[in-house]
Amino acid sequence: MADAVTPRAEDYSQWYIDVVRKAKLADYSPVRGCMVIRPNGYALWENMKQALDGMFKATGHENMYFPLFIPQRFMAREAEHVEGFAKECAVVTHSRLTTNDEGELIPDPESALDEALIVRPTSETIIWHTFADWVQSYRDLPLLMNQWANVVRWEMRTRLFLRTMEFLWQEGHTAHATKEEAVEEALRMLDVYTRFAEEYMAMPVIRGVKTPSERFAGAVDTYCIEALMQDNKALQAGTSHFLGQNFAKAFDCTFTNERNEEEYVWATSWGVSTRLIGGLIMTHSDDQGLVLPPKLARWHAVVVPIYFNDDQRAAVLEAADRIRKELEDAGLSIHVDDDDTQSPGWKFNEYELQGVPLRIAIGPRDLENDNVELARRDTREKEIVPQDGLVERIEGLLDEIQTSLYEKALRRRAENTTVVDTYDEFKEVIEEKGGFVLAHWDGSAETEARIKDETAATIRCIPLDREAEPGEDMLTGKPSKGRVVFARAY
Amino acid sequence: MADAVTPRAEDYSQWYIDVVRKAKLADYSPVRGCMVIRPNGYALWENMKQALDGMFKATGHENMYFPLFIPQRFMAREAEHVEGFAKECAVVTHSRLTTNDEGELIPDPESALDEALIVRPTSETIIWHTFADWVQSYRDLPLLMNQWANVVRWEMRTRLFLRTMEFLWQEGHTAHATKEEAVEEALRMLDVYTRFAEEYMAMPVIRGVKTPSERFAGAVDTYCIEALMQDNKALQAGTSHFLGQNFAKAFDCTFTNERNEEEYVWATSWGVSTRLIGGLIMTHSDDQGLVLPPKLARWHAVVVPIYFNDDQRAAVLEAADRIRKELEDAGLSIHVDDDDTQSPGWKFNEYELQGVPLRIAIGPRDLENDNVELARRDTREKEIVPQDGLVERIEGLLDEIQTSLYEKALRRRAENTTVVDTYDEFKEVIEEKGGFVLAHWDGSAETEARIKDETAATIRCIPLDREAEPGEDMLTGKPSKGRVVFARAY
Repeated sequence: MADAVTPRAEDYSQWYIDVVRKAKLADYSPVRGCMVIRPNGYALWENMKQALDGMFKATGHENMYFPLFIPQRFMAREAEHVEGFAKECAVVTHSRLTTNDEGELIPDPESALDEALIVRPTSETIIWHTFADWVQSYRDLPLLMNQWANVVRWEMRTRLFLRTMEFLWQEGHTAHATKEEAVEEALRMLDVYTRFAEEYMAMPVIRGVKTPSERFAGAVDTYCIEALMQDNKALQAGTSHFLGQNFAKAFDCTFTNERNEEEYVWATSWGVSTRLIGGLIMTHSDDQGLVLPPKLARWHAVVVPIYFNDDQRAAVLEAADRIRKELEDAGLSIHVDDDDTQSPGWKFNEYELQGVPLRIAIGPRDLENDNVELARRDTREKEIVPQDGLVERIEGLLDEIQTSLYEKALRRRAENTTVVDTYDEFKEVIEEKGGFVLAHWDGSAETEARIKDETAATIRCIPLDREAEPGEDMLTGKPSKGRVVFARAY
Repeated sequence: MADAVTPRAEDYSQWYIDVVRKAKLADYSPVRGCMVIRPNGYALWENMKQALDGMFKATGHENMYFPLFIPQRFMAREAEHVEGFAKECAVVTHSRLTTNDEGELIPDPESALDEALIVRPTSETIIWHTFADWVQSYRDLPLLMNQWANVVRWEMRTRLFLRTMEFLWQEGHTAHATKEEAVEEALRMLDVYTRFAEEYMAMPVIRGVKTPSERFAGAVDTYCIEALMQDNKALQAGTSHFLGQNFAKAFDCTFTNERNEEEYVWATSWGVSTRLIGGLIMTHSDDQGLVLPPKLARWHAVVVPIYFNDDQRAAVLEAADRIRKELEDAGLSIHVDDDDTQSPGWKFNEYELQGVPLRIAIGPRDLENDNVELARRDTREKEIVPQDGLVERIEGLLDEIQTSLYEKALRRRAENTTVVDTYDEFKEVIEEKGGFVLAHWDGSAETEARIKDETAATIRCIPLDREAEPGEDMLTGKPSKGRVVFARAY
């Protein structure tokens, strides 16, 4: 069939692209590495934003907006930060176009800027420059800020949602009087991300801390949530950084504490992005297309009317509209597809591709019997149910789908998490099976780098809730305090 | 007083800046022409977005997201468009920074791009490139799209909110099968903007069409809403463009119509921006600071507890919290300021500066009498009212404030709209009084340019609902079909 997706088993990468495009989530754009997010994809992002924004506000954060551009000199202020971002950024050097002698449009040489501007890859530098103005005394702290914005990182290899040159995200930036408070904040936001991933995205995650070599450029500690995709590769789904006093020192942001001493401010930053949509797709979708958890779906259900003549059409559409209204009154988001130019069969396929959690089909015989046909997208089970009590039935099913998607993903993760003790075993599991591999590591960057070179697996994190388990590094035999999580990753 | 704003009569520009900064709406940033939008300002934008987004969706539009960058060659495709925007744009030419021999950070010459990228000043070009892929047949039409985004125009003279290099906005882009449908859409969105301006912002506007010389670069007709600020200068608050087939032709976007003929698609685009916040400020605020219409205010009311000892404090805060809860349950947004480090008098002043529509003060004597003191921000009237029935009282007052702000602005506009017949009179009114001036114009660009040169007044619009009134151009004596609206403008 023209509109089928490539099966996962045949070509996982192509399957992913097919799902994204056939579910009308996003398209490639004429700008290398940038995508067009289509209404179905943007609606997912809006739902994610709404849920996250509510959680940020409930934990005391306020939204702001800082400039898109960062003066080049700011990038140089924090040594590790510039090292991390200078190699992949969009640099603005001119403020005007003009035509050359051949009549071609070119950047006007006369408009060359005295100082280049960087399109923000992240906003720590400009925000800490501003915080330095705002913070004088401990009474001004904490500052708990967030912004929803676009950022640009000049990635060489891009993939829709997962890694794009421009992406949409939120970045939280907070300033605190003490180290303890800042660490607490970083962990609090990691918990917010964990709750969001598990309760809204139905995507189980491991909470952990990154090794020094995988830290955010400029952080003291990077906390993360890591999820396992269906191809058994890991996806870093969100990060929360304890920045220590690094940015405060780089931007001279001090405050007078309660003992009237001058101190540098303590910082955190944390972010999730449209990458989450990639994670959502790769956690639940199948060979029929997108599968969405009801809590984030654009439409909870689609109503497909079925009729064979005009009389039936009028009666069926009237019933469809009544059902829509009843469900909308209960707070559900419902789409009635009354397009006459497409067949019911085409529509069934289309909304499977688009991942609408429930399909309600209603035809002349259903009208006679006061029934509808309900179909679940996740299990593709169908049943005939009475119109009476439909709202409760559907609310119940949506809850059940939400829970069931999470449990299924959790089972898959459990089945694809392997504990290994020897490096041979490790290499075999990474190569043959993939997934999360729990193994002992001696804590050295050298060992970590060698494993990465030899197997393409990285330490995803040191789990926050791991049990203390003394052991020996699988490669060097040196002592280890507990197992860390390895995987090949996106 | 340190926290007072400069009176309007003394220095209107300084008054405006004082209101913006003391109400904590926005701050200058270290990037020339770009601002930091602070939580109070961003909350206004969020409320505006929410109201407008609902109106866009109710009129059938969907949100999408297109790339920040526009390939330079796209800009060249529509002749007027490039003419309008090429002279003021941020041009990305490199993808990396490096350090030179002096150890300074510079754009890496080796990373020079083959083709420069323009930071979008508006997105018609990239969107019409994409629409050309999406539209094949009349069945694909209309496309009714909107995006919420940041845009950059390299303005030389900037002013917080009113004209900034980067600003936040929405841009609607629609594609239609017929000219009539496209014109109807452009006017429908002008109506949406009018309703938003008048019902939410309490800002009366004149709906009109721009003269050719004031049109959007690439439009056939630019419709606009024009508001009058307190210094009697006009502000263009929103525009809706009928683009004809200009962009469809530039990007080769055709469709097969119902008669199986190939035709170019008809287009509109329409936008409002954070500039509206500037208009909101200059419509209602006074020498005590910001004044906000309740429908867009971050907080509908602030509760200021008053106490002189710990026993009173506990009792008053308990009552304040109960009142907050009752009001929140009624859907109102309430802030209780229980900061012990500031006096009630300081808080009264602070929330006047911030424009909170209602202040509820509650102290020990109010507790005894089951009263509170209510103060309106707009009129600064105070009254003692019973706690019983407070919710209804406050809901009523908020409605009254919303209406009263609109009526006051409408009266001010009427008082500052002058009908003139001679050019001498015109020059005198523009110079001495300002405001909207209704005068006859012969329809020529030459006359329009001469008036602009000589008086700095421009034709704001040809009102859509003007009465036909034959007359003679005040300058040339040539025939005119009706009066147009002149003003000096932001």
